[in-house]
Amino acid sequence: MRLALGLAEQGRGSVEPNPMVGCVIVRDNQVIGQGYHQRFGGPHAEVHALRDAGDARGATAYVTLEPCCHHGKTPPCSDALISAGVRRVVVAMADPFEQVDGGGLAQLNRAGIETRVGVLEHEARELNAAYLKRLQTGRPFTIAKWAMTVDGRIATSTGQSQWISSEASRADVHALRGRVDAIAVGMGTVIADDPMLTARPPGVRTATRVVFCAHRLPTARSRLIQSASEVPVLLIVSPEIDASEVAKLEQLGASVYRCTSSNLVHMIHQSLDFLGSQSMTNVMIEGGGELMASFLTADAIDQYEVYVGAKVFGGRGALGPVAGDGFASVADAAALQLVRLQRLGDNDVKLVYRRMQRD
Amino acid sequence: MRLALGLAEQGRGSVEPNPMVGCVIVRDNQVIGQGYHQRFGGPHAEVHALRDAGDARGATAYVTLEPCCHHGKTPPCSDALISAGVRRVVVAMADPFEQVDGGGLAQLNRAGIETRVGVLEHEARELNAAYLKRLQTGRPFTIAKWAMTVDGRIATSTGQSQWISSEASRADVHALRGRVDAIAVGMGTVIADDPMLTARPPGVRTATRVVFCAHRLPTARSRLIQSASEVPVLLIVSPEIDASEVAKLEQLGASVYRCTSSNLVHMIHQSLDFLGSQSMTNVMIEGGGELMASFLTADAIDQYEVYVGAKVFGGRGALGPVAGDGFASVADAAALQLVRLQRLGDNDVKLVYRRMQRD
Repeated sequence: MRLALGLAEQGRGSVEPNPMVGCVIVRDNQVIGQGYHQRFGGPHAEVHALRDAGDARGATAYVTLEPCCHHGKTPPCSDALISAGVRRVVVAMADPFEQVDGGGLAQLNRAGIETRVGVLEHEARELNAAYLKRLQTGRPFTIAKWAMTVDGRIATSTGQSQWISSEASRADVHALRGRVDAIAVGMGTVIADDPMLTARPPGVRTATRVVFCAHRLPTARSRLIQSASEVPVLLIVSPEIDASEVAKLEQLGASVYRCTSSNLVHMIHQSLDFLGSQSMTNVMIEGGGELMASFLTADAIDQYEVYVGAKVFGGRGALGPVAGDGFASVADAAALQLVRLQRLGDNDVKLVYRRMQRD
Repeated sequence: MRLALGLAEQGRGSVEPNPMVGCVIVRDNQVIGQGYHQRFGGPHAEVHALRDAGDARGATAYVTLEPCCHHGKTPPCSDALISAGVRRVVVAMADPFEQVDGGGLAQLNRAGIETRVGVLEHEARELNAAYLKRLQTGRPFTIAKWAMTVDGRIATSTGQSQWISSEASRADVHALRGRVDAIAVGMGTVIADDPMLTARPPGVRTATRVVFCAHRLPTARSRLIQSASEVPVLLIVSPEIDASEVAKLEQLGASVYRCTSSNLVHMIHQSLDFLGSQSMTNVMIEGGGELMASFLTADAIDQYEVYVGAKVFGGRGALGPVAGDGFASVADAAALQLVRLQRLGDNDVKLVYRRMQRD
């Protein structure tokens, strides 16, 4: 199953909004077939693995997610396993997707195939945390990303920030940009940095660049709007923004989602519902501090990817990654779970956290 | 030699101002003796290892530092190795201490013992970085320590800071406190936290608690002064502090070092010279942000031990670990080298950096 999980991981960025799935076929303690769901719309993991095996009669299939039993873009995998003559199917977790939801396992059982569920289930849930979140809540999984110095600054006292992190870290960020569905920023960042927010080199998918416009819009001359016809730009617009100004940016290629509130926290909730409805699975939040703080207040950050560059800036007035009013008490502060720590390049560190699940 | 370095490490905190030294005696590819310098004033590593070996004739001694050749608190180790009949001595690095400085190796050579220098020298220099710094500069090695959240805050917007880090991290801090010679804080920290700055449980040595008093003194009722007769307190006092107030605190048990400047950066330089002259090898800087910034401006931080607690505080006004004016440009900022990253407890991270050596 661990091998199957590793295979599944290879589909990250290419399969969404589908789940990542890996499959390994074993007979007589020998791996005879391997496969994974490689891209959205393409064959599922089981089909790849069965093809790889050739003859899978009497074998055991290890699959990281319950086989599907419905006709979607491809025929049901349960049928494929049954007709291949597999004797036993071991599954890491059932698929809560409403068109499967135990139906795949039931169909295998009816065909006389032995099934087992729950092998490395925790790992399988982690692998597909974004898929599962969207199924449960209708919203994409959100990843807050920032690069800061060892003393927690995202810029010097005069606003310089290039570069806090090393080339290796920046390449890692671009890889993340290249696999998510959207990259969100606030207007402060657009004004300060005039960013492109594209993945360089391009990744397996092209993220929509999402700008939260509570009080202001990007100018027509901003790099985001200038490139809106090539790479999608979505403006999340509050009711206080002048409609004719919005219309001008729409003509330049930007899409618009209109919120019913100018409160950034409400705008975040509304826009996440909207992004989820657009089949978006992963959204990256790149800042700045005010948007980050509002996402935190909205309790809408699922994962943190923090790069610590080996520098110290100091300065009472130098910006930190999360602004806003902040939590007054330690007890109320956001509590996180460390899921990974990693050295990047010679001196950078990448820390990955998940929101602590509250009981 | 790696084994000898590991042995040497066990003397950390107990041997200073001496260097840590480990020794392994090998004959016919078998380790026949091991030892390390265990405590200041006690026998050196070579003596322990030779005793452990019993008969060391014809053997090779691996020592992490050149054997001493002078009569200090103990007889010369070079004599001990010669009279034990050792055939060969392999040394990680020469000892720049002026009473040794190649003399130990020369004496061994004169006695017909084969010598080799430079095996794992980098590691041996790292091990005794503090000893070497004090020999070269007359000043102690300084370790800046802070605990911050994932967003780089040392307190919430209302000043709460208990606790940012986990019990495991705090135990680690107390272990560090229990092996250094001094713990330095600024008056801001004394006023805000009224700290004790003791190691709990006590360590192998009792650190002097050093307070930088540029503009103010601790009150007689502060916990530091109240406990000054049991655990040493040293006040680093600027010329602008009223002498009679200083005298009162001296009567309560505090020691005083008078600087000739009220500029915190100058005070740091003067006090480090003084602490070095008092045979202090390691000084820990516990904050707050203004003292940390002044140490940074003085380019007087050798090592950083940063604990990252798995929390996010947010808040434009929430304090960061290094205050002051900060560096204006990224190019001027302090550049560090990552020497260790470590998970502590479930969710905390400890990052250890050294100042980047400028060419």
